[in-house]
Amino acid sequence: MKISTILRDGPDGPRPRPVAVLTDDEVVIDLRVAERRRLEAEGATSEAALRLAAALVPPSLARSIASGPAFLDRAADAIVAHDAQAMIPFDEVTWAPAIDPPMMIDGSAFEQHLVNAHARGKREVPDLFYEVPVYYKMNPVTVFGHEQTVPWPGGAAFMDYELEIAVVIGREGRDLRPEEALEHVLGVTVMNDLSARDVQAREMTAGFGPAKGKDFGTALGPWITTLDELALDDLTMLARVNGEEWSRGSTSTLTWSLAELVAYVSRNEVVVPGQVIGSGTVGLGCGLELFRKLRPGDVVELEIEGIGTLRNTLAEPSSTRWDPTPKERRASVTLPFREGAGTGGSGEGR
Amino acid sequence: MKISTILRDGPDGPRPRPVAVLTDDEVVIDLRVAERRRLEAEGATSEAALRLAAALVPPSLARSIASGPAFLDRAADAIVAHDAQAMIPFDEVTWAPAIDPPMMIDGSAFEQHLVNAHARGKREVPDLFYEVPVYYKMNPVTVFGHEQTVPWPGGAAFMDYELEIAVVIGREGRDLRPEEALEHVLGVTVMNDLSARDVQAREMTAGFGPAKGKDFGTALGPWITTLDELALDDLTMLARVNGEEWSRGSTSTLTWSLAELVAYVSRNEVVVPGQVIGSGTVGLGCGLELFRKLRPGDVVELEIEGIGTLRNTLAEPSSTRWDPTPKERRASVTLPFREGAGTGGSGEGR
Repeated sequence: MKISTILRDGPDGPRPRPVAVLTDDEVVIDLRVAERRRLEAEGATSEAALRLAAALVPPSLARSIASGPAFLDRAADAIVAHDAQAMIPFDEVTWAPAIDPPMMIDGSAFEQHLVNAHARGKREVPDLFYEVPVYYKMNPVTVFGHEQTVPWPGGAAFMDYELEIAVVIGREGRDLRPEEALEHVLGVTVMNDLSARDVQAREMTAGFGPAKGKDFGTALGPWITTLDELALDDLTMLARVNGEEWSRGSTSTLTWSLAELVAYVSRNEVVVPGQVIGSGTVGLGCGLELFRKLRPGDVVELEIEGIGTLRNTLAEPSSTRWDPTPKERRASVTLPFREGAGTGGSGEGR
Repeated sequence: MKISTILRDGPDGPRPRPVAVLTDDEVVIDLRVAERRRLEAEGATSEAALRLAAALVPPSLARSIASGPAFLDRAADAIVAHDAQAMIPFDEVTWAPAIDPPMMIDGSAFEQHLVNAHARGKREVPDLFYEVPVYYKMNPVTVFGHEQTVPWPGGAAFMDYELEIAVVIGREGRDLRPEEALEHVLGVTVMNDLSARDVQAREMTAGFGPAKGKDFGTALGPWITTLDELALDDLTMLARVNGEEWSRGSTSTLTWSLAELVAYVSRNEVVVPGQVIGSGTVGLGCGLELFRKLRPGDVVELEIEGIGTLRNTLAEPSSTRWDPTPKERRASVTLPFREGAGTGGSGEGR
C-alpha cells in the first residue's frame, strides 16, 4: 500500500487530506471520502458517516496512523473498493508532505558518505559512527512535499541536497531490539535533507549538531510505501538535478541497517506513530561529495526503487532581517576546587 | 497569569487538562470547566457549552495557546470569575508537564556554564558561542511535569540536572528581530535539562550534538508565568538536591538575552505556539560544574523567582535490552577529482 497527504480546497481554504496512492492508475483515493461512503453504504446516516470518517481520517496522516489497524485496514478496504467518487487523478493533485511527523530524526548509516564528507573537511570519521548508529534531531515543522518549492535560506551560499531513504514509524515502541524494530515501522519514503553547507560547516564547530544548516526545510514524499510491498536490502537510489543524474546508490550499502537505527533511536525513549527516521545520505548522494552546488531554480529529483520520485524546485535566496552582534569573552573558570577533581566523571556539559 | 497542565481522572482514565494556577490560594482552575460554566451562565445549553469549551480547551495546553487571545482572554476571565466549581486545591492535583511542546530547543546563553563545562573537558569554548546564540533540538516526546519521577536511562553512570529558564512561544513568528521577539513569547517556565554526562561526553565526539545523553527526559514546570507578571532581567535561579542548595544564579548573567535567542531560533524558520526554548544552564547550575553526581532517589528542586519550584525525584537506573555491535571501518574515500577542488566550498556534510 502507498499512502500520502494532499491538499484539497474547500470553504476553509486548502486543507490536508490523507490519501491512498494507486501508482498504476495515477490516482489517489481521498481516505475520508472513501470511509464516509463506505459507512453510508453500510447504512449510516450522512452526518454519522462523516463524523466517524473525520475521527478516523483527521487532517493529519500521523494522527491517522496512530489508530493502527483501525485506520490501515480501512485504507486497504478503500483501495479494494476503488470508488471513483473518492478518486482524484494525479494531474489534479496538490501534494503535501507525505507525512506530518511529530518528531523527525536523521541517522548517518551509510559509511561511504561519512568517509567522503569528512575527507572534504580533512578529518577522519569519529569512532562513534562505527560504535553506534549516530543520529541528530531534525526540525519537524519545516517539512515540504512533492513538487513544492523548497527554500534557499537567507545567508546561505552553498546549497545542497541529500539523498536518503526514511522510515515512518507505525506503532509506538521503546527499547526495541533490531529483530523487532521493523514491526514498529509502517513503511518508507524518500527524504531530501536539504543542507546549506557553508552555514552547516560553521555551526558544526560548536558541537551541538546541525541546526541552521538544515532546519530551514526537508522534503518528504511523494508517498510512503508500506513494508509489505518491498524488501529493504537492495533498493536503487538516484538523484537528478535538472534531469541530469548526479547520484546513484543502493540501500545495500547501508552500514547500519534501518532496523538497527530504529532500535537505537528507541533506546531509553519512545518512537511514536508518524515519526520519521532518515537513513543518512547514501555514498556520493549529495553535491558536497561531487564538488557541485545547487543553483536557484534547480529541480532536484530523488528516486528510490519501490517508492517513487520526490521532485522539488529550489527557490531564489531569501534575505534575513537580523544578524547577531558577537559577544565578548568575559567569564573565567569558576570550578570549585575538589580533592581528586577530575576522577569523578569525564562528562562534558553544554 | 500562571497556566499549566494537570491530569484528571475520568471514565477514560487520567487525561490532561489545561489549568490556570492561583499560587496565593493554592488552587488550580480547570479551564474547560470554567469556560463551560461561563457559557452555560450566558445561556448556552449544557451540550453546546461543553462542545465550545472542548474546542477552546483541548487536552493540550500547546493547542489551547494556539488560539491566541481567544483562549488567553477566557483564561483571564476564569481567574476573575473565581468559580469554586472549577477549582482543585494543590494537594489534590496531579501535575503534568506544564506544556506539551510541539518542538523543544535548548540554547546555551550563559557563558559561565560554557566556560566551566569546557574547562572540565580541558577545552576552550568555540568562537561560535560568542558569534550566535547556539542551540540544539531536544526531544519533545519525553517531557515530565512537576513532582513526576524522572528516568535514569539504562547504561548511564553520571546523572546530572541542569538549571534553566525556558520561554514558551505564544504566537507564530518567522525571522524575528530581538526587539519584536518577546511579543511572540507567552511566558517562562523552569526547565530541568536532565543529562547523562558519561553518555553525552561519548556522543559529543561525533559532532551531531546531544542525543542519548539528554533525550530520555526533560522536566518542565510547575507552571508558565506570563511575561506581564515578571521582568526577565534579574530573576534568582536556585537548585536544591535533597533540600541542600547546590546552585544559585540569576538571569542577569545571561550572555545572550532570551529575546536574542528566540530571534535567532526564528531565523529562516518558524517558532510555533507551545514551542519551548531553554536558556541553557546558568553558571554553576549543574553537578558537572560542582564535581557532584546525582544518585537514584535524589529529589531535585529547581526554583526561579517569579515562577516557582519544579521538583522531581530521580528513578532507579533502568536497564537496556540491546547494545549495538560495533562495525568495521571499510570504505575508502571516493571523492571525484575536480580541477580546483576544495575552492568550491568549505562545507562539511554529515
